[in-house]
Amino acid sequence: MSSAVTVTLVQQPFTVGAVSQNTEKVLSIAKASSADLLLFPELTLTGYPPEDLLLRQDFQQLVEQGLQQILDARLAVTLVVGHPWRDGEALYNAASVIQNGQLLARYYKQELPNHGVFDELRYFTPGDKACTFQLKGQTFAVLICEDIWHGGPAALAKSEGAEWALVLNASPYCVGKPAQREQILTTLAKRLKLGFVYVNQVMGQDELMFDGQSLVVSPSAEVLFRGANAEAELHTQELLPRDTLYPQPQPRAALSLEAEVYQLLVMATRDYVVQNGFPGAVLGLSGGIDSALTLAIAVDALGADKVQALMLPFTYTSGMSVEDAEAQAKAMGIEFGSVSIEPMYNSFMQQLTPLFAGRGKDTTEENLQARLRGVLLMALSNKTGRMLLTTGNKSENAVGYCTLYGDMCGGFAVIKDVPKTLVYRLAAYRNSLSPVIPQRVIDRPPSAELAPDQTDQDNLPPYDDLDAMIDAYVEQDKSLPEIVALGYDEATVRRVLHLIDINEYKRRQSAVGPKVTRRNFGKDRRYPITSWMRKQR
Amino acid sequence: MSSAVTVTLVQQPFTVGAVSQNTEKVLSIAKASSADLLLFPELTLTGYPPEDLLLRQDFQQLVEQGLQQILDARLAVTLVVGHPWRDGEALYNAASVIQNGQLLARYYKQELPNHGVFDELRYFTPGDKACTFQLKGQTFAVLICEDIWHGGPAALAKSEGAEWALVLNASPYCVGKPAQREQILTTLAKRLKLGFVYVNQVMGQDELMFDGQSLVVSPSAEVLFRGANAEAELHTQELLPRDTLYPQPQPRAALSLEAEVYQLLVMATRDYVVQNGFPGAVLGLSGGIDSALTLAIAVDALGADKVQALMLPFTYTSGMSVEDAEAQAKAMGIEFGSVSIEPMYNSFMQQLTPLFAGRGKDTTEENLQARLRGVLLMALSNKTGRMLLTTGNKSENAVGYCTLYGDMCGGFAVIKDVPKTLVYRLAAYRNSLSPVIPQRVIDRPPSAELAPDQTDQDNLPPYDDLDAMIDAYVEQDKSLPEIVALGYDEATVRRVLHLIDINEYKRRQSAVGPKVTRRNFGKDRRYPITSWMRKQR
Repeated sequence: MSSAVTVTLVQQPFTVGAVSQNTEKVLSIAKASSADLLLFPELTLTGYPPEDLLLRQDFQQLVEQGLQQILDARLAVTLVVGHPWRDGEALYNAASVIQNGQLLARYYKQELPNHGVFDELRYFTPGDKACTFQLKGQTFAVLICEDIWHGGPAALAKSEGAEWALVLNASPYCVGKPAQREQILTTLAKRLKLGFVYVNQVMGQDELMFDGQSLVVSPSAEVLFRGANAEAELHTQELLPRDTLYPQPQPRAALSLEAEVYQLLVMATRDYVVQNGFPGAVLGLSGGIDSALTLAIAVDALGADKVQALMLPFTYTSGMSVEDAEAQAKAMGIEFGSVSIEPMYNSFMQQLTPLFAGRGKDTTEENLQARLRGVLLMALSNKTGRMLLTTGNKSENAVGYCTLYGDMCGGFAVIKDVPKTLVYRLAAYRNSLSPVIPQRVIDRPPSAELAPDQTDQDNLPPYDDLDAMIDAYVEQDKSLPEIVALGYDEATVRRVLHLIDINEYKRRQSAVGPKVTRRNFGKDRRYPITSWMRKQR
Repeated sequence: MSSAVTVTLVQQPFTVGAVSQNTEKVLSIAKASSADLLLFPELTLTGYPPEDLLLRQDFQQLVEQGLQQILDARLAVTLVVGHPWRDGEALYNAASVIQNGQLLARYYKQELPNHGVFDELRYFTPGDKACTFQLKGQTFAVLICEDIWHGGPAALAKSEGAEWALVLNASPYCVGKPAQREQILTTLAKRLKLGFVYVNQVMGQDELMFDGQSLVVSPSAEVLFRGANAEAELHTQELLPRDTLYPQPQPRAALSLEAEVYQLLVMATRDYVVQNGFPGAVLGLSGGIDSALTLAIAVDALGADKVQALMLPFTYTSGMSVEDAEAQAKAMGIEFGSVSIEPMYNSFMQQLTPLFAGRGKDTTEENLQARLRGVLLMALSNKTGRMLLTTGNKSENAVGYCTLYGDMCGGFAVIKDVPKTLVYRLAAYRNSLSPVIPQRVIDRPPSAELAPDQTDQDNLPPYDDLDAMIDAYVEQDKSLPEIVALGYDEATVRRVLHLIDINEYKRRQSAVGPKVTRRNFGKDRRYPITSWMRKQR
């Protein structure tokens, strides 16, 4: 006779490399638990992705010690905890089921992703067996992350009698991913009459954001629970015996895209700054929308007392920019200052003029302005110990409308993978909570203000078009003719693709920043710098 | 009855992404050939590694067109040419044997490397069949690169009657690799009584150097030919019928390590600058050994007329540094200038002083000097169009003794993967050809000259010890106790490993530079930035 099983979904952050701290966290959650079953995220003990730490023997030893500590604690609750596991020559992405100090079962992940941001075949050997165990008369199987995206492992688990699959995940966020996960789980549940308890990691880790949004789906494909976005949570769910009806479930409603992404960027910024031991952040405020949004995120992530902004005006800086930057700094209650770059610019030009004899003005002088700002901000960062946040968006990153060692300076690129059109939507969303970004910043035509009366649209197509072209070329691998066929002017498309191609060298030296779109610049898109693909069109 | 077959080893560069140019090159070499057989390097048509270009359909179409062009040319010579090949859902790392406009055979690489700098499982499906063909009564098999490092594919080829394996390679250089390849081939030849014609790519491609050093090994394991290091070459070898004795072969002697690496760095620098369309290079000369060696390599790569150097002195710059920089510039016949950074430094400090009120002097002021130099050099680079070369070595890259956006500025980091101890050996080697680096630069204690009477050894162990620790930790994954057991002081080792750990963020924003050691910082060592591994010791 089977009875209800209570399972706690441990949607909590586990820092990469922090094996002893993660082990302590597992133990402290387990000791406080009164559930039957505790489900942790993928590679709980090491954090995800541990990357080449996995190649180190001393790292494997730490994992073995951590696991032994958990076994030795002889906990009452049954735990499902993730960790790498070496067996002979092979390393597995594993999960252990631990009960009363005994290893009840161990599962090896069967589907190892080696695409997009993932490199799991660099480290792991795939498993080929299901792993099931009984609790209170119900049968559970263990699966790990990518396993559910292929169907085979879930079907295998079902064929061995599983009624519920416990899925450990470190599933990186991108726009649309939460809905996709839910669709996959409900489809599998319907097809297999298998329930799913799906726990996702929740934290920022370098260029990845794990959004949480854990799920419980019943064997009849009802969504029983949706976890919080971008927040740690311990949710306990009752899993009823087969064919028992659930009272009408009332899972959380899905968030708007803007709310979801904004909350995640706040989480990612906090995690990157704090986990790396920085006492706060500094940034340059230009009066433009990118730095305005970045400031809002930074303050929401770290608190106003931990964020400092500098305005760095020059001849081409409009009065409006100065006013708006001041107004936002005031609205957000942060330390704010203004330093003109004019004396530095002049002293540089005085030394450079003889070297530049016979050559006219060009973008060199614009880059110089951006770089002087970079040097000033880095000096402030070095002196205060606070991390410089860089404020560029995906659109300018794509076409290289940014200055290497200038506005690209910084430890974390908060909105690096946010297209300009989404920057506007996120700014409007943040203002809908409380108005912090002056409306004029949102309404005015975007400009780098590096030359008189300059606007971004002097040289670029409107951002709606530009972002569509970037999406088609970068995220969808469409060709020039295919993009032109979407209704754009060929010369413009050609120029945009050329700019994307030739700016790989800049992106390669850019700060890390969180992935938001289906394909970010970083681990997700690995292009050669030296490439004559640009000469094939 | 079998007779002698002449095979030309096409040790030539094939640029990544340059499908149409590479196809033209194949055709022009083939049309001029009077050999029986032409063997090209791995992925001839796309260059190696094409990385995520392989995910693009338009890229696959270019490859199909290129291959069709080669078929249509109906060449007399039999060609073995490498290219990716799509068959249904699967993409293969393939080689085609083409004769008289006909596809005689096609081979799919069986062993796909997905370790170190390689990501082949991200793109390719492994083959599982040998591929043999007959020419003049002799039997040839095709193999690709990693295949020979496992033995299985060569044994399979032999079991299907092959007398010779034709091996297409894009085998990246690292110290010791050429001897390793030769050992593997002679061992396989001995074991299997199989001959090898091994052609390697020769060029620099971003962070990889393909050294050439192609090989021919007879079925009785004699080395019949060793190809040039770092130089394009077309060598024609006669492959004699079975059991015919070769006249006493006289292959090239192996080079000294210093000569080998120096020539490769020259090649890599030339290829990166030229392939990316830059008319020359600029660099900052400090009077120290790193910039001295980098300048020598740059001039040897590009010619004196294409290289310009700037000395950027400040209060802490010694007279000796100024004299030595001038002397080297003169010896190498390059354009040279000197610009004091003092006025810029003063104007920055004037603006920064109020912001820094209440805080003492620290490394901020040292970083500022380095960054002002970076800004000046980038301005020169932008104005002249010449690429800035950065001059840091592996030892300082490892422990973070370099300034982000300062001396780290530049498009290509020539000696990025050269440990300081090897920097000295390379400088001495270059001077042995003709004395261009003042002896004092080699003899004096190394110093960044960012503070009064500073030397590197104020804060770091002697470079002999430091390089040994870096090698143990970075290249060999040794643990703290294992490194201490090599005979070093624990506190020092602990500090060095901590510095290596916490400076990942700097390295992530560094310029690409060529891999020289067994494991370079870059694609070869993928460490998380956010990692608490440093808190586990």
